[in-house]
Amino acid sequence: MKGAAYMGGGRLQTVSVDVAPPGPGELQIAVAYCGLCGTDLHIVHGDMEARVRTPLVFGHEVSGTVAAVGAGVQGWKAGDPLTVMPLVWDGTCPACLAGHQHICQNLVFLGIDSPGGLQLRWNVPAAIAVPIPSDLDLRTAALVEPVAVAVHDVRRSDLQVGDHAVVLGGGPIGVLIAGVARDAGAHVMVAEVDVSRRSRIAGLGIKVIDPSSADMVAEVERWTDGVGADVVFEVSGAAAAARSTTALAKVRGTIVVVAIHSAARELDLQRLFWRELRLLGARVYQRSDFDRAVELLRRGRIPAEAVISGVVPLEETASAINDLSAGRAMKILVDVAGEAQA
Amino acid sequence: MKGAAYMGGGRLQTVSVDVAPPGPGELQIAVAYCGLCGTDLHIVHGDMEARVRTPLVFGHEVSGTVAAVGAGVQGWKAGDPLTVMPLVWDGTCPACLAGHQHICQNLVFLGIDSPGGLQLRWNVPAAIAVPIPSDLDLRTAALVEPVAVAVHDVRRSDLQVGDHAVVLGGGPIGVLIAGVARDAGAHVMVAEVDVSRRSRIAGLGIKVIDPSSADMVAEVERWTDGVGADVVFEVSGAAAAARSTTALAKVRGTIVVVAIHSAARELDLQRLFWRELRLLGARVYQRSDFDRAVELLRRGRIPAEAVISGVVPLEETASAINDLSAGRAMKILVDVAGEAQA
Ligand SMILES: [Zn+2]
Ligand SMILES: [Zn+2]
Repeated sequence: MKGAAYMGGGRLQTVSVDVAPPGPGELQIAVAYCGLCGTDLHIVHGDMEARVRTPLVFGHEVSGTVAAVGAGVQGWKAGDPLTVMPLVWDGTCPACLAGHQHICQNLVFLGIDSPGGLQLRWNVPAAIAVPIPSDLDLRTAALVEPVAVAVHDVRRSDLQVGDHAVVLGGGPIGVLIAGVARDAGAHVMVAEVDVSRRSRIAGLGIKVIDPSSADMVAEVERWTDGVGADVVFEVSGAAAAARSTTALAKVRGTIVVVAIHSAARELDLQRLFWRELRLLGARVYQRSDFDRAVELLRRGRIPAEAVISGVVPLEETASAINDLSAGRAMKILVDVAGEAQA
Repeated sequence: MKGAAYMGGGRLQTVSVDVAPPGPGELQIAVAYCGLCGTDLHIVHGDMEARVRTPLVFGHEVSGTVAAVGAGVQGWKAGDPLTVMPLVWDGTCPACLAGHQHICQNLVFLGIDSPGGLQLRWNVPAAIAVPIPSDLDLRTAALVEPVAVAVHDVRRSDLQVGDHAVVLGGGPIGVLIAGVARDAGAHVMVAEVDVSRRSRIAGLGIKVIDPSSADMVAEVERWTDGVGADVVFEVSGAAAAARSTTALAKVRGTIVVVAIHSAARELDLQRLFWRELRLLGARVYQRSDFDRAVELLRRGRIPAEAVISGVVPLEETASAINDLSAGRAMKILVDVAGEAQA
């Protein structure tokens, strides 16, 4: 059956994939939708050649239904809607033994370190399959994975009702963090340089600002009556944004580093010391984040449709990647099943 | 009566100070000893000209006895031994209102922003006087303030029994953090470039390493069976040390920034993200830290005598500052009362 694969050397191709039956403990998924994210861009741009083994069927933001149930799997039957938490941990490293399996030191990330969801049939361990309730459509369910990222980031920040949260970067994850934070009762401000993203965010009723023209520190001071932000989420990956975080946070405030910063960044450790700030790394998600993401999407608390800027068939995955790379899109879903699901 | 004052322009002088009676709510202290610390060096080196008003009687690591009791002060009588938590907060700023009075946004630090303890008589608010038990001698009691810093740093780190803590920098605060962490049941390793400090630390039975010759990451990996440090205390103020912290900490480990970093520092935010690290600023102390510091010193759990490298009369404050600046000393106490107390 067909799939989309990264072939190495920056080349992407629609391929034919052999379908094995699900092994013991596995589920075979009939993939409906698969979202594309920044990590997929990195793969296709050749930034992760040392890590990926080509040809790689990538993709990890999946919704679908159970196509077949492997030996020994309980609680699932053909046709059940589901998504996947695409992490497999070893259970034996220091991180796992300390209870942090989601950041296992030998983590296998499905769609990067092993085949992903951009194929009609995908076999995954049943243990990481997450049920989708019948009243959440599969298109929206493809957002569960990125929403789980946002839930994890917000949960890690200890955000409280009434807090002021600044989100630096208004891409899909930034917008989803803003949505999760708003649902948690926080006041939210997003900083985003791109004008079309800003108007999309403003359309959601979320306060948005252009950090390239505004004085962010003064704006946040004014917005918080001189207190500073309770939480700052650094989602942009930009050096200047990272540098600004310590100036935006209140005394004992929290900064969460969500973005991948490919180079060392300058930080004002004097300010971190002076205000007793807290800077936290937040990576992927835990199962409880997935369950919460499903619930938030089911209850319509997350602006899913504002994040999904397009849906393309599997054959157009390459052009979707190009659109995302050029900043012409927010979140694009690949309609993997295509007419098969129509 | 006499005192030691910073006159501005890098000049220090023994001066005559008028003694006012203690005001309402104040205690007048007959100062016994006053320790000199890094902040005092900064003052005398002229690094804080914009902040200090000269002539400034500086010094904030004080022990002494009550000389006179101001109107309305309860619970104190002449002769009671005491130390001082040298902070005065406004009680009205956002930090104070949130319960973080010790890092008040308008904090007055006695000995920097107002007169300090390098004088025979010192009037302070009774609210920040801390009683010294009769079985703790006044010489050792002059260490309560720096020990309270160490207690605060360790408390902020959430260090647990059995944890592995790396202390970057083996000056007085580094050694005291090591002592407090060891007393709390942690395994401790100190990194220090100065050979004489290293031998002093080794003499305390604390593992010590030269970061300029050793491979710190490999050493910590070996020491922790590949896990990494639970807590890293950055006490050195050096750019390279700050840069190294993220490589030393375990998954979900904690880095505490204790030192003052005068310039922005490069940090590996990718590693912070990848391991979900936590970077905390820790500044001064709270009252509970002072109480705990008194208790630790009283019970002999802190290597006080190893930290005190000398005691000088008030008139030799300038040469003591020179010795400290040249790295020829660890902690020098000024015997303020001199023969008066003999
Ligand atoms: Zn593991
Ligand atoms: Zn205050």
